[in-house]
Amino acid sequence: MNLLLFEPEDFLPDGTAVVSGRRLRQLREVIKAEPGKLCKAGVLGGHVGRAELLTIDAERATFRFEPQQYPPPPLAVTLFCALPRPLTFAKVIHSAVTCGVKDIHFFHSAKVEKSYWQSSKLDPGAIRDEVILALEQCGDTVMPEISFHRRFRVFVEDEIPGIVPGDALRLFGSPGAAEPVPVGAAQRGPVALAVGPEGGFNDFEENLLQSFGFRPVTLGKRILRSEFAVNSILTLLQG
Amino acid sequence: MNLLLFEPEDFLPDGTAVVSGRRLRQLREVIKAEPGKLCKAGVLGGHVGRAELLTIDAERATFRFEPQQYPPPPLAVTLFCALPRPLTFAKVIHSAVTCGVKDIHFFHSAKVEKSYWQSSKLDPGAIRDEVILALEQCGDTVMPEISFHRRFRVFVEDEIPGIVPGDALRLFGSPGAAEPVPVGAAQRGPVALAVGPEGGFNDFEENLLQSFGFRPVTLGKRILRSEFAVNSILTLLQG
Repeated sequence: MNLLLFEPEDFLPDGTAVVSGRRLRQLREVIKAEPGKLCKAGVLGGHVGRAELLTIDAERATFRFEPQQYPPPPLAVTLFCALPRPLTFAKVIHSAVTCGVKDIHFFHSAKVEKSYWQSSKLDPGAIRDEVILALEQCGDTVMPEISFHRRFRVFVEDEIPGIVPGDALRLFGSPGAAEPVPVGAAQRGPVALAVGPEGGFNDFEENLLQSFGFRPVTLGKRILRSEFAVNSILTLLQG
Repeated sequence: MNLLLFEPEDFLPDGTAVVSGRRLRQLREVIKAEPGKLCKAGVLGGHVGRAELLTIDAERATFRFEPQQYPPPPLAVTLFCALPRPLTFAKVIHSAVTCGVKDIHFFHSAKVEKSYWQSSKLDPGAIRDEVILALEQCGDTVMPEISFHRRFRVFVEDEIPGIVPGDALRLFGSPGAAEPVPVGAAQRGPVALAVGPEGGFNDFEENLLQSFGFRPVTLGKRILRSEFAVNSILTLLQG
């Protein structure tokens, strides 16, 4: 927890914020915080700043929060990701959110097992918990939009054109590609990045993406686990 | 398992390789491999190539291996990493090995809890298992050297000079640094990279590293989990 993240409903009318549950346990058991301690903090969807711990006991901790600045700027990347296996799904969310992505779309693809769509990891509450942990890790306050697309062709042909600005650089990861990930591209303009499933896109999918302006790029010969591949590509796009 | 990794002792005098245990389970249960299947394969410490599955049953699978090329080149980075908490330790190993690091040193630092040094995750057998999984993931065959250093000052003053070539670029991660990680530096010459513990290096440690030629570099404002920070820095150094 590099950032203590308050939710708007944590605030009392007198302006103090009250924390319980997971955050309280971490404050007591890991941080061993005592009154007077200053924490880096933020409000979900709002500013970051610092919070002074006023009181703490087994039931609750109360803070006085002082907003100081805007959260870190978002990464100008729209991420399209083939739905990973359930245990990887949360790691990919973490990876993308900690890199600052604010628009994440999971889609079906030929090599995605249909059973992945039934996973409880896709429940909105489970996703929200992962997102909050990722925001606390990276010091951000802004929730990403996360959506799901069950039909690949409809997604690429009919939905992506409405999601991605016309001038966005469109890329997809392809281990056999000749072009490396362009360093710093997301500093120069919006980027749409499509990442395939573990076994990769099939030929139909790669051709469809290319016909909609996506260029294949590669991280090199080494194949990384999905969450690290996402982290590596986003790191390079950020530059 | 993107690469079926044989160990030298898997080979019979007639040149076939015999696989059982974890690899056999994966071949049967996940890959559902049948005789005639061609797999990307390699020999620990040797070439990569392809293997044809000859026979498979509940006890063993036998292959004919054909070496074709050298494994991917190593990344010219020596990684010095403050010993992470036990659950993170294996993830950092995975992250570094899949990026191609061949020389990894874990060290003690003021903000490393002493109990971390007692973890069973540091047993040589546990480390070897993690390394093998990472090599299979990234398609490599060459084991890294991994060593441990319990005294920070002795490590920096007396040991690092014998580990790192004099002309190596020396960097350490410091979130507050002004200089970003230099993109592609490991393509231009050897790099020594020091990564601190979760809470960061303390002032004494940063000053000692700087007096031995290490420059602070940053990934930006967002704080990543150790395994992702290692992955991001190595990705940028590779360029």
